[in-house]
Amino acid sequence: MGRWKPGAGDRLREAALSLYLERGFEQTMVADIAGRAGVTARTFFRYFADKREVLFDDSAALEEKSLAALDELPATTPALDAVAAVLDTVARLVGDDRELARKRQLVIMANADLRERELIKLTSLSAALATRLRQRGIGDIEASLAAETSIAVFRVAFSRWVTGVEDQDLPDLIRETWERLRTLAAGG
Amino acid sequence: MGRWKPGAGDRLREAALSLYLERGFEQTMVADIAGRAGVTARTFFRYFADKREVLFDDSAALEEKSLAALDELPATTPALDAVAAVLDTVARLVGDDRELARKRQLVIMANADLRERELIKLTSLSAALATRLRQRGIGDIEASLAAETSIAVFRVAFSRWVTGVEDQDLPDLIRETWERLRTLAAGG
Repeated sequence: MGRWKPGAGDRLREAALSLYLERGFEQTMVADIAGRAGVTARTFFRYFADKREVLFDDSAALEEKSLAALDELPATTPALDAVAAVLDTVARLVGDDRELARKRQLVIMANADLRERELIKLTSLSAALATRLRQRGIGDIEASLAAETSIAVFRVAFSRWVTGVEDQDLPDLIRETWERLRTLAAGG
Repeated sequence: MGRWKPGAGDRLREAALSLYLERGFEQTMVADIAGRAGVTARTFFRYFADKREVLFDDSAALEEKSLAALDELPATTPALDAVAAVLDTVARLVGDDRELARKRQLVIMANADLRERELIKLTSLSAALATRLRQRGIGDIEASLAAETSIAVFRVAFSRWVTGVEDQDLPDLIRETWERLRTLAAGG
């Protein structure tokens, strides 16, 4: 969500989110989105494969940047510190516009197919992280566990961020959620 | 999976799993399953709503038993100990037949829709656990975090159990995975 640039793609995205919230995702057609953004449907398809991709087209870039963040860490970084550093990168990428994130979240939560897509995206990120952790020499189980746990932390922190009234930013909330997990795990 | 009883329901389940593995889930029709089990399609529908439910009909009972296990714990049980006790109950319920579980897992992993359904089932269990933990007086964030973390531990342990060569049982693997998480979180 940090990648939104001015121009037709940006206008299309804002038009789509507004329409999904007003009418529902199912009821919104590509022609409606293009119309509101003041472009043709043909232009829509230059930016997005379909109306669902308006919500998810950042996924691949996010996964790539997450793995790149992991690659930059010293080889000796413990598993949980490594995934915490990755989440921090993710938080900086997706955490710059809470209003936009909140709208997107509302749209996704209102539709079972979109919720599934979001879950799959996170599971795919977890699997990719685990694979890369193994390549760094972290044991099989620790790698899976660290990756799955980072998704758990992300989901909890992200939900606090988009629904919260507090004005904490996402990287802060993620750090705080990690601390809470460490406290819980220590028996707190 | 611990609920399989002899009789038509049991035969239908075994027939379905075998056919899903042989031909693929998509390619298997209810009539094929009924035929192999030696019953009519009408009988199939007395046991299962559709061919997908053969794989998922235990979900509701599992969620119910998980929440019942939570309710039996002393009110002072810390969040992570509480979800660990729940997972132990789940492990005893689903962990009695590894061959069956392995077959089911192979079928699910081979089909995107089924993988989504499995993810949704776990997410729904996590949400139900978090709600019940809050009702027990556990803080909002700790409740979500403990519930999400338990799903992470379950996924890692379950995958070790069904794919593993070791002969550890599922409750043991879950306990061991919790320990590993505590070690990781302590900075190990």
